[in-house]
Amino acid sequence: MKKSILAAAALTAFAAAASAQSSVTVFGIVDQSINRIDNGGNTVTQVKSNQLASNRLGFRGTEDLGGGLKAGFWLEAGMDNENGGGAASGGLAFNRRSTVSLLGAFGEIRIGHDYTPQFWAPVVGDVNGANGLGAGLNLVDKNLGSSANTFVRANNQVEYFLPGGLGGLYGNFGISAGQNEAGNKHWSGRLGYGAGPVDVSVDYGQTKTDTSDDFKVFGVAGSYNFGVAALYGFYNQNKWGSAKQNSYGLSVGVPIGAGQFRAAYGHQTTSDSIRDGSSRLYSLEYVYSLSKMTSVYASYGRISNTDLSNFKVQGNGYDATGDVSSGYNAGIKVSF
Amino acid sequence: MKKSILAAAALTAFAAAASAQSSVTVFGIVDQSINRIDNGGNTVTQVKSNQLASNRLGFRGTEDLGGGLKAGFWLEAGMDNENGGGAASGGLAFNRRSTVSLLGAFGEIRIGHDYTPQFWAPVVGDVNGANGLGAGLNLVDKNLGSSANTFVRANNQVEYFLPGGLGGLYGNFGISAGQNEAGNKHWSGRLGYGAGPVDVSVDYGQTKTDTSDDFKVFGVAGSYNFGVAALYGFYNQNKWGSAKQNSYGLSVGVPIGAGQFRAAYGHQTTSDSIRDGSSRLYSLEYVYSLSKMTSVYASYGRISNTDLSNFKVQGNGYDATGDVSSGYNAGIKVSF
Amino acid sequence: MKKSILAAAALTAFAAAASAQSSVTVFGIVDQSINRIDNGGNTVTQVKSNQLASNRLGFRGTEDLGGGLKAGFWLEAGMDNENGGGAASGGLAFNRRSTVSLLGAFGEIRIGHDYTPQFWAPVVGDVNGANGLGAGLNLVDKNLGSSANTFVRANNQVEYFLPGGLGGLYGNFGISAGQNEAGNKHWSGRLGYGAGPVDVSVDYGQTKTDTSDDFKVFGVAGSYNFGVAALYGFYNQNKWGSAKQNSYGLSVGVPIGAGQFRAAYGHQTTSDSIRDGSSRLYSLEYVYSLSKMTSVYASYGRISNTDLSNFKVQGNGYDATGDVSSGYNAGIKVSF
Repeated sequence: MKKSILAAAALTAFAAAASAQSSVTVFGIVDQSINRIDNGGNTVTQVKSNQLASNRLGFRGTEDLGGGLKAGFWLEAGMDNENGGGAASGGLAFNRRSTVSLLGAFGEIRIGHDYTPQFWAPVVGDVNGANGLGAGLNLVDKNLGSSANTFVRANNQVEYFLPGGLGGLYGNFGISAGQNEAGNKHWSGRLGYGAGPVDVSVDYGQTKTDTSDDFKVFGVAGSYNFGVAALYGFYNQNKWGSAKQNSYGLSVGVPIGAGQFRAAYGHQTTSDSIRDGSSRLYSLEYVYSLSKMTSVYASYGRISNTDLSNFKVQGNGYDATGDVSSGYNAGIKVSF
Repeated sequence: MKKSILAAAALTAFAAAASAQSSVTVFGIVDQSINRIDNGGNTVTQVKSNQLASNRLGFRGTEDLGGGLKAGFWLEAGMDNENGGGAASGGLAFNRRSTVSLLGAFGEIRIGHDYTPQFWAPVVGDVNGANGLGAGLNLVDKNLGSSANTFVRANNQVEYFLPGGLGGLYGNFGISAGQNEAGNKHWSGRLGYGAGPVDVSVDYGQTKTDTSDDFKVFGVAGSYNFGVAALYGFYNQNKWGSAKQNSYGLSVGVPIGAGQFRAAYGHQTTSDSIRDGSSRLYSLEYVYSLSKMTSVYASYGRISNTDLSNFKVQGNGYDATGDVSSGYNAGIKVSF
Repeated sequence: MKKSILAAAALTAFAAAASAQSSVTVFGIVDQSINRIDNGGNTVTQVKSNQLASNRLGFRGTEDLGGGLKAGFWLEAGMDNENGGGAASGGLAFNRRSTVSLLGAFGEIRIGHDYTPQFWAPVVGDVNGANGLGAGLNLVDKNLGSSANTFVRANNQVEYFLPGGLGGLYGNFGISAGQNEAGNKHWSGRLGYGAGPVDVSVDYGQTKTDTSDDFKVFGVAGSYNFGVAALYGFYNQNKWGSAKQNSYGLSVGVPIGAGQFRAAYGHQTTSDSIRDGSSRLYSLEYVYSLSKMTSVYASYGRISNTDLSNFKVQGNGYDATGDVSSGYNAGIKVSF
C-alpha cells in the first residue's frame, strides 16, 4: 500500500539552474468507513479513518550516490480525514515517519522519528496488520500506565537495518537518546527470517520511565502461506515493574477471487492492581480489491473484557471496562 | 480555479516495485491582497488571504477501476498565507475537503469532511462567489448563536451526488452522523438545473444543536448569462427556534476585455432578541485576468448595519454593531 | 539547496479540462544530526534537525504571463523531523515563506510572510550561513527583550526587489503593516553589490514595539572568494531604547576535495541592565558532499559567555548564563 507514483523530474524555466536529478514521490492512503460501534451497551454510528489501513500523506525519495550508496528521506503524516484533520493532534505533521537515511551494502542507517523495532510482532503476526476492528493490536496495552511513549514509534531515533541478501535474515536495531527524557529514552531490536511461504521474527525493547522501572516489550510473530490460506500468529509481553500483560493472536487469510476473507482470534491477560483482567477478541472481515490501489471492505469484531480490562474494537466515547465492545463497519480505501 | 497540473507517473529505481498507474495532482491557490478596512470608524491596513478566491493547497486524484467505475480522493487545506499559516487554526489541515469517493454511472458516493449541500445558495447565486469584501455570504449568519457548526462544511459526512447526463439536472444529499454530537449531526440536500445560460438550484438542511431546536437552512439561487452581462440572485433563510435570518443578494458580472466588472447588492434581516437588526451591502469589483491561472483585482465594499446587526466586509479587530463596515482592496491571485 | 525537481505537467483523464500550463515544484531538505551539547556543564545527547541547513518542505512555481511578466508563489514549511513534527509549533505551516509574487523588468513585488530584508547580514557574512553550532547568528539577540517578532521574518509583508541586470547591484525593501500590532509592524531595507568574487551588503530596519521605542537593526556583511579560500565577515547592531547589542563574525571556508573546511570566530557585547555581558564564539566544521543534493558533516562549536549573556551553540534544556556552551555533532543532509 506504500507503492505510488513519482513526480517526474523535468527542466523548466524555473528550474533552469536546478540539478534536477532527484525526485520526490507523493504518496498516501485515504480510507473511510462507516462504523457502528457498541461499547458497554452504548452504540454510536461514526465515519472513521484507518479501518483497513492507516490514512497517510507522504513525500519520499532516494538519490543514487554511486558506488552502491544511496541517500533517502521519508516524510509521512497521519490524517483523520473524517474531520478534515491533519494528524490526530491538529495540523498535518510527519508523525508516522520523518527520517533521513544512508543506504549501502552495509545496510541502512536511518535517523529521525520512526517506528520502534519492538512494535512489529502484533502487526506482522496478524492478518489484519495494525488496523481495524479485529486487529490483535487492539488488545495490546501500549504503556501499562507508565510514561513510556515508544511502543509504536520513537522520536530522536538512530536505527540500523541489516542489508538484504542475507538468505532471508532481516533485522534492525534502534536507539533513542530521547533528549534523555523519561518516556522517550529507548532502545529496541528485531530479528527475523523470511523466505518463501514462511516468516518468523522476534523483538525486544526497553524504555526509560519516570519511575526506576523500565517499560519492557518482548514479541514473537510468525506466518505461513499455504496458498489456499495463510496462517498468522503472535505473542507479545509488556512489563513495567509489577505490571505485566501477555497477549497473543491467531488469524487466517483465505484468498477468494479478487478478495480475501479474514478471521482472527486474540486473547490478553493483564496482571496489575489497577488494570487486572482478561479479554477475548473474535473478528471476521472481507476485503475486496477493486484494483491494486483501491479496496472495499466489511468487518465485524467483538472483544469481551473481564474485571478491569477495557479494550475496544474501536473507541466511541464510551467505556467497556469488564464489558463487551463490538462493532461492524464497511469502508473504502484508496491508495496513491 | 481548481484546475491544475498532474504529477506524471514515472518509473524509477525507487518505484521499481510500484504499480505506478495512479496519479496525484498537487493544486492550489495563493491570493494576497492589501486591504484598508474601516469597521465602526476604526481603520486598519492589512495584508489578507482569500479575497478573490480561498487560498488552498491540495492533493487529489482518481483511478479508473474499469467498467465505468472510478475511485477518487481529495485532500484540500486552507491557508492564511499572510501569516505563514497553514489552516486558520494553526498547522496545515485538510479542513476544506478531505474525502474518498466511488464514482460510476450511478453517480458519486463521497465520504469524509466536505461542504454541506445546504451551503451553496449564497455562493452560486453571487457573482463574487464566497469571497471578498462584496460577497453576499458576508451577510449570512452561519449559526444564529446556536452550536451548529455545519453551515459550510460537516465532518463525518456520507454524500451521494447525482450522475451527469440527466439533461442539466444535478443534486446531492449528505448525512453526517457527526458521532452523534450536537452541532455536528446534520443532513442536507440540494437540487439544481443548469443548461446553457441558465442555472437554478434550491437547498435545505437541518443540524442538531444543544437545545431541542434544530438549526435549519433553506436557500435558492439562480443565474442567467446574457453574454453582455451575467445576472445572479440568491435568497437564504436560517432558523433556530425563534431566531430567524433572511438574506438575499443581487449581482451582475460584465465582461470587459480580459477582465470582469462586478457589482452587487445584498440585504439581511435578523429577528432574534439578541441580534435583531438589518444590513445592506453594496460592492464593486474589477478582476483582470493576466492568464487563466493569474488575476489581479481591486474592489470596494460597504455594509451598513442597524440595531444589533454586526456584519462586516472583512474583520479588522473592531466592532461594527449598528454601524458601518467598509473597505477597499487590491490583490493578486495565483492558481496552480 | 533550494534547487529541486519539478512535477511535470501532463494531461490525463482527470486533467482533461485543465489548462495544465502551470507547474508546481515540490522541494525540501531533511537534515538530521547527532549532537552532544554541554550547556553550563550539563550535557545532553540529542538528535536534531537544521544543523547544516534548515529542514523544510515546500511547494513553489512560476507562470510566464508573456511580455516579460511572471507570477509566482512560494510555500515553505519548517520541520522538526527528529520529533515527526511539522513546524516547531506543531503542525506543518508555511512559516518559512508563504508568498505570491509578480515579477518583471521592474523587479519583483512579493506579498505575504517572508524573511525581512534586515535579517541577512549575519547570514551572508558567515561561511556557516544561519545554521549549526558555529553560526555567528547564534550570538545575535533577536529582540533584546522587546516584543519585536520580526528579526528573521515578518507577517503581512509587502516587498519590492530590484531586478537583475543592474551591474551587480541588488536590494529589496519590505513594509509590514502588521495589522498595526506592536511587535509586527515593521519596515526594513537591504542594498548590496555582488560581482565575481566579491559580495557586500548593508541592511537597516525598524519594528514597532509595545513601548515608545522601536526595535532597530543595522547590519553590514561582506565576503571575498580567493579560490583557495573564501573569507566572510559581518557586523550587526540591534537597539531598543537603552538596550544595545553589537555582534560581529569572521569566518573562512576552504575547499578540500569534494568537501569544505570551515572555521569561524564571533563576538557579541550587550549593554542592557538585565542582559549585560559579552560572548566569544569559536567553531570548526567539515562538510563533505556525497552529491549535489546530499552532504555529511561534523562540527565543533564553543561559546563562552560573561556576566548575564546566555548564548548557546544549541539549546539542550539547560542554562549557560555567564558560562560556557559547547558541543559537537555529526549529521547528514538530503535535499530534494
